Amino acid sequence: MSGFRIPTPRPPDEALAGAIQAKIDAKTKPLGALGQLEALARQVALIQQTLTPTLRQPHVLVFAADHGIAAEGVSAYPADVTHQMVRNFAAGGAAINVFCRLHGLTLRVVDAGVRGSFADVPAVLNQKIAEGTRNFRHAPAMTAAECRQALALGAALVDDIHRAGCNVVGFGEMGIGNTSSAAVLLHLLGGVPLASCVGRGTGLDEAGLARKQAVLAAAVAAHPTVATVDGTDALTVLATFGGFEIAQLCGALLRAAELGMVLLIDGFIGSAALLVAWRLAPAVLPYCVFSHESAEGGHPHLLRVLGVQPLLRLDLRLGEGTGSALVYPLVQAAVAFFTEMASFESAGVSPAEADQ
Amino acid sequence: MSGFRIPTPRPPDEALAGAIQAKIDAKTKPLGALGQLEALARQVALIQQTLTPTLRQPHVLVFAADHGIAAEGVSAYPADVTHQMVRNFAAGGAAINVFCRLHGLTLRVVDAGVRGSFADVPAVLNQKIAEGTRNFRHAPAMTAAECRQALALGAALVDDIHRAGCNVVGFGEMGIGNTSSAAVLLHLLGGVPLASCVGRGTGLDEAGLARKQAVLAAAVAAHPTVATVDGTDALTVLATFGGFEIAQLCGALLRAAELGMVLLIDGFIGSAALLVAWRLAPAVLPYCVFSHESAEGGHPHLLRVLGVQPLLRLDLRLGEGTGSALVYPLVQAAVAFFTEMASFESAGVSPAEADQ
Repeated sequence: MSGFRIPTPRPPDEALAGAIQAKIDAKTKPLGALGQLEALARQVALIQQTLTPTLRQPHVLVFAADHGIAAEGVSAYPADVTHQMVRNFAAGGAAINVFCRLHGLTLRVVDAGVRGSFADVPAVLNQKIAEGTRNFRHAPAMTAAECRQALALGAALVDDIHRAGCNVVGFGEMGIGNTSSAAVLLHLLGGVPLASCVGRGTGLDEAGLARKQAVLAAAVAAHPTVATVDGTDALTVLATFGGFEIAQLCGALLRAAELGMVLLIDGFIGSAALLVAWRLAPAVLPYCVFSHESAEGGHPHLLRVLGVQPLLRLDLRLGEGTGSALVYPLVQAAVAFFTEMASFESAGVSPAEADQ
Repeated sequence: MSGFRIPTPRPPDEALAGAIQAKIDAKTKPLGALGQLEALARQVALIQQTLTPTLRQPHVLVFAADHGIAAEGVSAYPADVTHQMVRNFAAGGAAINVFCRLHGLTLRVVDAGVRGSFADVPAVLNQKIAEGTRNFRHAPAMTAAECRQALALGAALVDDIHRAGCNVVGFGEMGIGNTSSAAVLLHLLGGVPLASCVGRGTGLDEAGLARKQAVLAAAVAAHPTVATVDGTDALTVLATFGGFEIAQLCGALLRAAELGMVLLIDGFIGSAALLVAWRLAPAVLPYCVFSHESAEGGHPHLLRVLGVQPLLRLDLRLGEGTGSALVYPLVQAAVAFFTEMASFESAGVSPAEADQ
């Protein structure tokens, strides 16, 4: 990974904004009547710098990895489930498989650092950094070199799909224990009190939630150097408390924005990876479509830190990129009305009366 | 229309509810992690009375009609726009055309009472009751016989598509002035103060909104007999203040529920037609999927009267059935996860740990 540089997206040029709005306002509908779909059409047109945007070869990339912190009993599921679920992805039986098939998205499943081998499962892309992170209750989750390698591998995968013609990509993850990583990232990089960042994950009860909060408070206290940098050294925070899937996701997000792709952001973990990316390169944000507000406790806080509004609120808390896949038809609808609807002039429809 | 009886849907049998929930809980995901999609899967399975629901030949029916009340200046658009927009639907240029094409729904456009002929437009189904309603500021919008005829024609169209194999149907409307009808229906049948029922429609400014409120207050006062029945005689309220598209929609909703179809409800006008249907036959409600909460002022109040939660909040205020078409991929996703996802047992994934 020598020579890897962190991608540096630039914000889309706004010069086309006036022409985009004029095209929307000429459509046969009252001004603004398509609400958030109009904002979405503006965003996609600006990202693609065209009045005739298209969505090509949509993908969802799911990064999976194990977490040393899972040994502290912070999840309702045993750590083996990460490995088992990756096999379920490869066999086509998980929710993300169903939604990708239904909506025409290509799914790529990445072993970013899962315990155990997938040598017998060719559908799983091997980008394993190690057999899970170290337990960040006692040691940094990964080394700086591992963190950089993960960013590079995530970015390289985006390069691959982009070269093959993809211009819209959703991001998912799987990793027992990864809401713990995401909670600490939000706490340190978003300035949100730890208690507000910690949620029930896959389904902790009250006692489990209390244990998870205590473990994470102790973990933050165990790394005082990191905890006192006030969230400004995002890479150190990521290496200390992150996961290999979160780091690969972060690299993927940054490269996808740099390439001018449309990014479909999923729930709490995906947004936590974006939080790191945003600290490294704020211009990643205008490339992101926020699919939904998760029922996982920290997600609304994270969206507020980023200052963004999600499109869906369906009480989802599954991850896997399921929100990304579910929001894709709305992105299609935004592009379709913008490119296909008739104008008042072409359809012979009278505009609103001026004196109303 | 002699011999027409108002359809009388019965609530779905709940005997399957336990088996449906057990099937959902066996899927490879944390309990409840698909949120409102799980409720939607339960609903569709109960409506279809099966553990293997399917969605067949989805349709959107758009009913259009003109409104005598439009002469009072209650809309930002001239009344001719109803006719022009029906031609736009027939030519494929409106938002509802775009969304139906995108998501694979068949669109049927119905002239329920538009001023002017569509004899030259075979794509428009002629169910015209009259060339628009009378101005309900001064006279009942329609006669009792016209109202009954409209209900019957709406119901008959649903019979047609059901016979052809359709089991899921969205409902839309077009009619300059019809937010005025819907506002009065909500006021009288929902018990909501008139000022809360009246919104900006296609885009009234402050002065236009004040005029609309004054016109509707005067219209309600002009029919004291209707206004004092406390909303219990829903058919008289519909005939006095409704529209031909709203009445046909009402008949269509009732018949679709009676036939055990899945009903996709759009925004303010569609929900007002449902409010009438619900007053006539409360069991219509469990067949309805509420697609979105409109930005039109009265819609949140109407949803509260019905006691229901919509799936989307996208600030749409277009009508045409656009919300119905946009929500359809979520209904597909609910059915797909329920019928296609692997179970913990079949995928070899460990369930949650009991002691957490």
